[in-house]
Amino acid sequence: MRLLNDTIQKIKEPDYSLAQKAKEKLDNLTKPQGSLGRLEEIAKHVVIITGNLQPQLKNKVIFTMAADHGVVAEGVSAFPKEVTPQMVYNFIRGGAAINVLARHVGSRVVVIDMGVGVDLERHPGLTIKKIGYGTKNMVQGPAMSKEEAIASIEGGIEVFEAEYNKGIDIIGIGDMGIGNTTPSAAIASILTGKSVEEIVGRGTGLDDAGLARKVTVIKKALKVNVPLATDALDVLSKVDGFEIGGLTGVILAAVARKIPVVIDGFISTAAALIAFTLKPEVKECMITAHCSPEKGHKLMLAHMGLRPLLDFDMRLGEGTGAALGMSIIEASIRILTEMATFQSAGVSERADKESP
Amino acid sequence: MRLLNDTIQKIKEPDYSLAQKAKEKLDNLTKPQGSLGRLEEIAKHVVIITGNLQPQLKNKVIFTMAADHGVVAEGVSAFPKEVTPQMVYNFIRGGAAINVLARHVGSRVVVIDMGVGVDLERHPGLTIKKIGYGTKNMVQGPAMSKEEAIASIEGGIEVFEAEYNKGIDIIGIGDMGIGNTTPSAAIASILTGKSVEEIVGRGTGLDDAGLARKVTVIKKALKVNVPLATDALDVLSKVDGFEIGGLTGVILAAVARKIPVVIDGFISTAAALIAFTLKPEVKECMITAHCSPEKGHKLMLAHMGLRPLLDFDMRLGEGTGAALGMSIIEASIRILTEMATFQSAGVSERADKESP
Repeated sequence: MRLLNDTIQKIKEPDYSLAQKAKEKLDNLTKPQGSLGRLEEIAKHVVIITGNLQPQLKNKVIFTMAADHGVVAEGVSAFPKEVTPQMVYNFIRGGAAINVLARHVGSRVVVIDMGVGVDLERHPGLTIKKIGYGTKNMVQGPAMSKEEAIASIEGGIEVFEAEYNKGIDIIGIGDMGIGNTTPSAAIASILTGKSVEEIVGRGTGLDDAGLARKVTVIKKALKVNVPLATDALDVLSKVDGFEIGGLTGVILAAVARKIPVVIDGFISTAAALIAFTLKPEVKECMITAHCSPEKGHKLMLAHMGLRPLLDFDMRLGEGTGAALGMSIIEASIRILTEMATFQSAGVSERADKESP
Repeated sequence: MRLLNDTIQKIKEPDYSLAQKAKEKLDNLTKPQGSLGRLEEIAKHVVIITGNLQPQLKNKVIFTMAADHGVVAEGVSAFPKEVTPQMVYNFIRGGAAINVLARHVGSRVVVIDMGVGVDLERHPGLTIKKIGYGTKNMVQGPAMSKEEAIASIEGGIEVFEAEYNKGIDIIGIGDMGIGNTTPSAAIASILTGKSVEEIVGRGTGLDDAGLARKVTVIKKALKVNVPLATDALDVLSKVDGFEIGGLTGVILAAVARKIPVVIDGFISTAAALIAFTLKPEVKECMITAHCSPEKGHKLMLAHMGLRPLLDFDMRLGEGTGAALGMSIIEASIRILTEMATFQSAGVSERADKESP
């Protein structure tokens, strides 16, 4: 608990006064003021997060965390649970969507076993932070103990710190875990106060019967466990997710280090919501890459006041949306740091612009 | 006229049957079917455009075309017209937004003088295809002759062909020309049938009085010239744009070569609309990068049935939106061509999937 508390205590309100300085810098570049729209907003946001008027976003890291979920026994996923370890091996070999997109945007991918149901072969590309062999079935009681919930978050903090020492300018977060839209929906329902029906979606591809079953399962889990909406650790421990806890830890650690965090889809946003409940200031350091078609995603983002960059109907997870988002964020910073000014390029300003 | 006619004749309906083959390929990759949403749609689209199930999008080129506009004398722009040549020099030196974003996405930028109002210094990074020293003021009569309109389009075709010989897999188009949202709005109004008021926006930053003046100017030009909505060459010659004509030529030439064309903002879309009116099939080969806040942009896109990728409030032109779009399109093709299949990665498919 100490590492978690220490990390949370390091998170401070960012220096918003830098926004004005960043705006002045952007307004001197050879383009009509504000004409790069959202790109300029993002550049200002990154300046605020990092506390740096000349940030560099060269070192990009995507943390893709994997774990299994006891609730899969209730038939809440279209895929069998052996897919979780199979996909971890796919990540390590570089064949998954996240590998392709990370290569495309120049990011490395750190793959972490937070609690896959089987022992995985050791590999230099795999970090083991196993909290357990999958969680318990949340329909029958808490998915994990409070100690395990804390351990999963602190495991995430440790993973981030180890990578931070190798150099990090911006991170993306992603997930892999068959069945994990179910715990994410449970978390979303409790922490946003929206009904389960408003939140739950089809995950990787449930039919109508599967969707109805998923709603019933989550309602049952909430009835059995009665998680406390004001206590994020209680929520995480009762309704699941070693990888969700791990991602929460990564977010907290990154924000404590003033590193921008790019949020991916539904599961990553559930982790962001846990982090936000623990320390609302983390919100200021998060940039949401995209909005997924999973129903509750939009509601969670609205709850935190976050606006996604892309709307591509992506619902894969792994950090795939975050990868695309990171590239756009890097573009915004290259605009801020690489463009010529009106003066340096000898370009006339607006005819109606007053001299300074 | 011969080069233009020959180019148009080379444009054929693409082979839509490849969409099914591309879908089968995407469905075998290690992800839930369709879970990459819009990225998968784009990948299929590029397969159809190129006629290739394994396209490569390594060689990227952005054509940024510059010209001046007689209508600037009516006070329709917030910037003075000397900014057009100043910005061309900025492009050549690599200090403009398009240079930064093109570097970011790994594209080269080809800068073309289609009709800047002054003679520009020769430079290896500048292609001269000058049709004239800016167009005439369209309020007083046709902005150019029919011959000049054809010459501007054929100039664009020649520019594309010269670059094509160096290797091109995908192109973006962009513009530079103080005052050019005015001719673009005129073109949009005529070719979509929408009123001038519905189309006209603030360009690089007009105030309310400037906006009202711009509406009046365009209405006057349409009244004086009476362009024929069914005759794209008549429209182009009467209401302007050497760079708009040049971009029309680039689009036609690229489509004739089965090269995907990424459309940028308001001015590029006006050129796309001219090309679409000349040969509706070009639409199938265009991908729209973004929707600008310039009012008529959305209406032009709807008229052609095009759906933008990004909604970032960008209104700079130069090809800046196209650059961001190209990177996303390349990502979609890397997904198609680089991901592992369920079989190659040893990943189980959906529990309910029937054996083939």
